[in-house]
Amino acid sequence: MIYFDVVVIGAGHAGCEAGYATAKMGFKTCLLTINLDVVGQMSCNPAIGGLAKGHIVREIDALGGLMAKIIDKTGIQFRMLNKSRGPAVQAPRAQADKVMYRLEMRKALEETENLYLIQDIAERIVVKNGEVSEVILESGNVISCKKLIVSTGTFLGGKIFIGDKTYPAGRTNEIPSTTLADSLKDLGFELIRFKTGTPARVHRDSIDFSKMERQDGDEPPPFFSFNPPKRKVEQIPCYLTYTNEKTHEIIFKNIHRSSLFSGLIQGIGPRYCPSIEDKLKKFPDRERHQVFLEPESRYTVEYYVNGVSTSLPVEVQYEYLRTIKGLENVEILRPGYAIEYFSINPLSLKVSLESKEIKGLYFAGQINGTSGYEEAAGQGLIAGINAALALKDREPVVLGRDQAYIGVMIDDLVTKGVDEPYRMFTSRSEYRLLLDHYTADKRLMPIGHSVGLIDDETYNRMLEKYEKIEKYLREVVSLPVKKALNGDFFTHFSSIDKSKVHTLEKLLKRPEISFEMIAPYLREGYLTEYETEVETAVKYKGYIEREMRRVEKSKDLEKVKIPEDFNYNISGLSREVREKLEKVRPVNLAQASRIPGVTPASISILYLTLTKKRK
Amino acid sequence: MIYFDVVVIGAGHAGCEAGYATAKMGFKTCLLTINLDVVGQMSCNPAIGGLAKGHIVREIDALGGLMAKIIDKTGIQFRMLNKSRGPAVQAPRAQADKVMYRLEMRKALEETENLYLIQDIAERIVVKNGEVSEVILESGNVISCKKLIVSTGTFLGGKIFIGDKTYPAGRTNEIPSTTLADSLKDLGFELIRFKTGTPARVHRDSIDFSKMERQDGDEPPPFFSFNPPKRKVEQIPCYLTYTNEKTHEIIFKNIHRSSLFSGLIQGIGPRYCPSIEDKLKKFPDRERHQVFLEPESRYTVEYYVNGVSTSLPVEVQYEYLRTIKGLENVEILRPGYAIEYFSINPLSLKVSLESKEIKGLYFAGQINGTSGYEEAAGQGLIAGINAALALKDREPVVLGRDQAYIGVMIDDLVTKGVDEPYRMFTSRSEYRLLLDHYTADKRLMPIGHSVGLIDDETYNRMLEKYEKIEKYLREVVSLPVKKALNGDFFTHFSSIDKSKVHTLEKLLKRPEISFEMIAPYLREGYLTEYETEVETAVKYKGYIEREMRRVEKSKDLEKVKIPEDFNYNISGLSREVREKLEKVRPVNLAQASRIPGVTPASISILYLTLTKKRK
Ligand SMILES: Cc1cc2nc3c(=O)[nH]c(=O)nc-3n(C[C@H](O)[C@H](O)[C@H](O)COP(=O)(O)OP(=O)(O)OC[C@H]3O[C@@H](n4cnc5c(N)ncnc54)[C@H](O)[C@@H]3O)c2cc1C
Ligand SMILES: Cc1cc2nc3c(=O)[nH]c(=O)nc-3n(C[C@H](O)[C@H](O)[C@H](O)COP(=O)(O)OP(=O)(O)OC[C@H]3O[C@@H](n4cnc5c(N)ncnc54)[C@H](O)[C@@H]3O)c2cc1C
Repeated sequence: MIYFDVVVIGAGHAGCEAGYATAKMGFKTCLLTINLDVVGQMSCNPAIGGLAKGHIVREIDALGGLMAKIIDKTGIQFRMLNKSRGPAVQAPRAQADKVMYRLEMRKALEETENLYLIQDIAERIVVKNGEVSEVILESGNVISCKKLIVSTGTFLGGKIFIGDKTYPAGRTNEIPSTTLADSLKDLGFELIRFKTGTPARVHRDSIDFSKMERQDGDEPPPFFSFNPPKRKVEQIPCYLTYTNEKTHEIIFKNIHRSSLFSGLIQGIGPRYCPSIEDKLKKFPDRERHQVFLEPESRYTVEYYVNGVSTSLPVEVQYEYLRTIKGLENVEILRPGYAIEYFSINPLSLKVSLESKEIKGLYFAGQINGTSGYEEAAGQGLIAGINAALALKDREPVVLGRDQAYIGVMIDDLVTKGVDEPYRMFTSRSEYRLLLDHYTADKRLMPIGHSVGLIDDETYNRMLEKYEKIEKYLREVVSLPVKKALNGDFFTHFSSIDKSKVHTLEKLLKRPEISFEMIAPYLREGYLTEYETEVETAVKYKGYIEREMRRVEKSKDLEKVKIPEDFNYNISGLSREVREKLEKVRPVNLAQASRIPGVTPASISILYLTLTKKRK
Repeated sequence: MIYFDVVVIGAGHAGCEAGYATAKMGFKTCLLTINLDVVGQMSCNPAIGGLAKGHIVREIDALGGLMAKIIDKTGIQFRMLNKSRGPAVQAPRAQADKVMYRLEMRKALEETENLYLIQDIAERIVVKNGEVSEVILESGNVISCKKLIVSTGTFLGGKIFIGDKTYPAGRTNEIPSTTLADSLKDLGFELIRFKTGTPARVHRDSIDFSKMERQDGDEPPPFFSFNPPKRKVEQIPCYLTYTNEKTHEIIFKNIHRSSLFSGLIQGIGPRYCPSIEDKLKKFPDRERHQVFLEPESRYTVEYYVNGVSTSLPVEVQYEYLRTIKGLENVEILRPGYAIEYFSINPLSLKVSLESKEIKGLYFAGQINGTSGYEEAAGQGLIAGINAALALKDREPVVLGRDQAYIGVMIDDLVTKGVDEPYRMFTSRSEYRLLLDHYTADKRLMPIGHSVGLIDDETYNRMLEKYEKIEKYLREVVSLPVKKALNGDFFTHFSSIDKSKVHTLEKLLKRPEISFEMIAPYLREGYLTEYETEVETAVKYKGYIEREMRRVEKSKDLEKVKIPEDFNYNISGLSREVREKLEKVRPVNLAQASRIPGVTPASISILYLTLTKKRK
């Protein structure tokens, strides 16, 4: 028996952040992985970020996590999505180098004091007096610990499907974790069967890129982290092609052989990452679907065929891929497949991600019913922070829905539960303008700093940044246009009525004007940095203030806390509502009001009961 | 169903060389691996080369294989062993960077035209009319092919043991190959159960190196390949420490818990890579055993604890490691373990490594009963070359025992069979002086060139090299000492009788004189390159000539070929001898004479019968 303060089961995207956080916060941490050579593996597409997901990465960075730093160090293409649209829906996205991401993630972890990446398989969790006590490993080793974080991804009872073939695996040809699922069941956790899928990987030299549309990265590369690396990135392009009638014909002809439609697969898949079979079934009239060819690494010839995730037999995968323009001679290196695995019901968790029943036991990542690297990493970081805070006898960090997408996600999970793999979208947030990715540092670095994951120097630079932005907003934008811009401006934009835009602020507020258009006319020394932040603050001031007022209002309900052991046996609450409340055990009335099926009337009754009691 | 000219099952050290050779020789090759992310993995110690093994690496290089190039590119420490001893027992050895070795090996393979590294698991081999026809894969995919090379390492029916724990695996926490063993059995192959073991890997920062003896690499690094890289190697040291009485006490106390001694393990292990339990049992009086701490990669904090391979329970591993000087606080990252697996009986193979019974089916590496990366790679290269030559209707390459250690190894395997994992030693060769590693290029590049694995430019440079050496041997060494050396020499080495060493040759022949001693006194322009080769040729001339004469003599027996279908039903041969000959089916009388149990008398009878017949 050996001892660690914290044990994290699983070094996927959730586990890496969790273990890093607890170690960095001072606790001797054991981060378990089935295979030390595949730490921080991207099981599916070679990309980090994108809409909502890119926001989460920026939030992880602001809280002091690793994901942004590692992708910045190793990415091979960087883009800012939706640059021409509002800031709320802009998001950074990077093509990852899977090989280097894994290596650098492992390196960063191994260089973290207090952190031990250990290769072994957790088989059983031992609980004593309602509190986590030990983990029993495949090797026979036993680790005693105070806190345990479970982040086993798609490995619990993992089972792979390709056509009519099926076999146990945690990810393509990796060992699954079989006994841990039983252990969780024995501890009283409800297991849910989900599934997900991935397309084939193909050989670079068997692709005819000349027949496809090329997609390049942005220059300079828009990095994710507050402290971006000073590296020169030789960006690698992606390529776009399409399925066609012939492709669809082959898939339809063979669709009964897909494990999805032959009845082999029972688990529920992510609605928003459908297989190509699903897409064709749902949109039988669509003439074509996009297919992106994305490089997996500078080190290998593997390309990811984005858009055609499948569980058709390999021979059918060959057949339909070879109908696609540019893939006529394609060679498959790893076949596409679907995988079924166990998640737990996240309703059994507190907002801190700790189990409601078992003290010291936390869950993060795919095991909580989510899908996606960023979603996993965001939860992992919070679980890690909260496990460490608990060891310090401090209150857990709970991010508000107005504070972070990570907050929205965790609140959704523990309040509404999941009936399919949960993926983050900007539309899941009711305060999208407050959560734009540019301001993640402002919103979250104070928390990262207070828990000890953000160092003073970085924190102070963040404060300086916002002081400067405030200053710009006070001084610069109120400048008379004539002082700030040189005369050519109005010559060029002759349609603008000079008399109505005395100040820069007024000018920037106009929907048809962007900072980019003004920039060439700015006199020297004005607004040479943080242009986007200033522009957004000016342009969306009204909207942002309106959202802030909505937040304020909802705070009233949030302030009404509900004790952990509150007795919902109150007259006026229907049995259904009572059961739902008892299952979720919301921490405050705001959360209670978000539980599906809990009516406004019941909230009023609760409000009365709770506020009466307090007096 | 897809088609490849050649399929290689397994991208370990054997499979990588095999697939590279067949692709490079012009055949569309599929190299199958269970996991694309671990190609060319070093399952055990992070080192390539050493005695006899270093010789094999040089031979692989001379034949046009990859191993030397990849280790030269990625090694982190290089040494020439036995520098102070005769050239026959000198050998290059390198500490490997396991991570980079894997990456660069994969890259080299993926950049080879005609070669496709495909991730899938071979489950069944289909034979039609006595000839290989198809391979059926786990994914359901089927590949038809003309030649098939099996190099599945320790994965066939692999089973891991740690104390009283045991579970199926191909290598630590990698998926084993289960059904392929059955398929081979069904095809009539005799399976042998062997075992091997490995020590724990530990965390760099938990080692106190200051208590150990440091071992540095040589400067400049002695690379393996004929075309060495122009890289500056920042060499990383290894460290030496020892077990002690306390260590031994703990191991003895727990020895009944080792899977080796509790009766769990049935397979036979390699005599010369014993576990620490074995060592203590065999040498109970030894006070200490060497323990080397070897870095596994620049990218990780893992250290390999060379010398204490084990199958004791993990808690005992912790306990005894922590008694060792410098390891008092050691943290284990991966526990040591033993593994059992299936090999085939190599007596079922021809010297070409093709199956005697099934046309087009070749075997290479650990599956033939050997142990070691270099042994595997050497066989893989020969199997690949011979599969490709067969596709070109050319005779197989068969290396003589006087030509290469690889030749000795293959001859031993197919002539004597194995009753324990076979490892190469210089003592296995009867012509050690002819096989020194310096002359590998001279001996084998003509073959590598003739099969198309060595390009003209390299080949010509090798010829030039030996022309120069010949010239040195003719002109320079016959120089009068007075002309070649400046006068200080005899002042310094006053004990040498000037009158007896007129020429450089005479001087170098003296056992107490080395070239290194002479070098500082050489006049400018003499012997500025290939000093070792010249020195060896001079110093060992007599011995080498004697070995060459022995080779000549043995050729007489080699010239007496035995037809493949020869009928051993000859009067005078005992039943035992007949059975042995029928099992091995030697290709000539020399091989017949090496079969254990085949007497000189039977060889005489055979000689008479065979030479009579020919007339
Ligand atoms: C085939 C496939 C397709 C996918 N497709 C998509 C997609 O289209 N879109 C999308 O957003 N996401 C997709 N994903 C999901 C995405 O990969 C995961 O959401 C993400 O990796 C989850 O991170 P995680 O940290 O929770 O777990 P993982 O990244 O799965 O990591 C789990 C870790 O736990 C370890 N582990 C498991 N059990 C044990 C144990 N008992 N003991 C010790 N270690 C253990 C493993 O070794 C591994 O290191 C897909 C995943 C797969 C496998
Ligand atoms: C625990 C352990 C300890 C060892 N200790 C020592 C030692 O002390 N000294 C020593 O000299 N050697 C040792 N070895 C042996 C050394 O690692 C091997 O001899 C060498 O790696 C053999 O090379 P190979 O190419 O034959 O097979 P491997 O390197 O084992 O490679 C086998 C390859 O085959 C693939 N494969 C297997 N089955 C299938 C299938 N059905 N379909 C597709 N692919 C398949 C695998 O994915 C892998 O890529 C040890 C090995 C192990 C595992």
